[in-house]
Amino acid sequence: MKKLSRRSFLGNTTLLSFTGLLGLMPSLYRGRQEQKKVFIHHVYFWLKNPDAAADKEKLVEGLNTLKTIDVIRTAHIGVPASTNRDVIEKGYNISWMLLFDNLEEEEMYQKHPVHLKFVDNYSHLWSKVVVYDSVDI
Amino acid sequence: MKKLSRRSFLGNTTLLSFTGLLGLMPSLYRGRQEQKKVFIHHVYFWLKNPDAAADKEKLVEGLNTLKTIDVIRTAHIGVPASTNRDVIEKGYNISWMLLFDNLEEEEMYQKHPVHLKFVDNYSHLWSKVVVYDSVDI
Repeated sequence: MKKLSRRSFLGNTTLLSFTGLLGLMPSLYRGRQEQKKVFIHHVYFWLKNPDAAADKEKLVEGLNTLKTIDVIRTAHIGVPASTNRDVIEKGYNISWMLLFDNLEEEEMYQKHPVHLKFVDNYSHLWSKVVVYDSVDI
Repeated sequence: MKKLSRRSFLGNTTLLSFTGLLGLMPSLYRGRQEQKKVFIHHVYFWLKNPDAAADKEKLVEGLNTLKTIDVIRTAHIGVPASTNRDVIEKGYNISWMLLFDNLEEEEMYQKHPVHLKFVDNYSHLWSKVVVYDSVDI
């Protein structure tokens, strides 16, 4: 499958480049074809001061710096939805979902200087982080 | 933004339609433009019998039935990656990530007869389910 572009971002800005989202656009014009594999890295942050809007903004600022890391295929910054059932975890403050092409690229992201700098500069903001990494079955 | 197609699935089959993934393809040809909002519904299942391959297959079979629900924009069935750090939750057995256009469509999915039938037919397989619903910040 032809790869049209490296990165696309969903998130908290209004003007974004979505070229190459999941690298799947060619299927638009060719109909059904083999899917592209994906590595989903979904991180949930609990802030130390969840009621401090400035802290939340600061963390979002930090996450936005990560979007420059070129191995990221897609990024999304989120907050808990208004849904409310027993099984729903609503205690976190920020959701950070990344799609990578594969494990190797996720590992490159983890070791990337911009990511290490993010941890240095922003980890004081959160009290807890939970990560779910999942791959195609 | 023009919406090209309703549904796209990432997951455990090899031939899939990706037309309209996140409804963002037009940006390929027009450059940067306003993003489409998204509702991320990410479900993690813990199986009662995590070592029973048949149970895992059965749950995947059930999740695949859900893909017929027309409000789903994108679906992905996953399993834990091989990554291993303290912050990574690896205890779950199946990841089920859905993208919807908005809260209302996620609620339609929850109440859809196919979803209710899925819960009836497959909920005996899991011991725990954790849901993270997130929306654009």
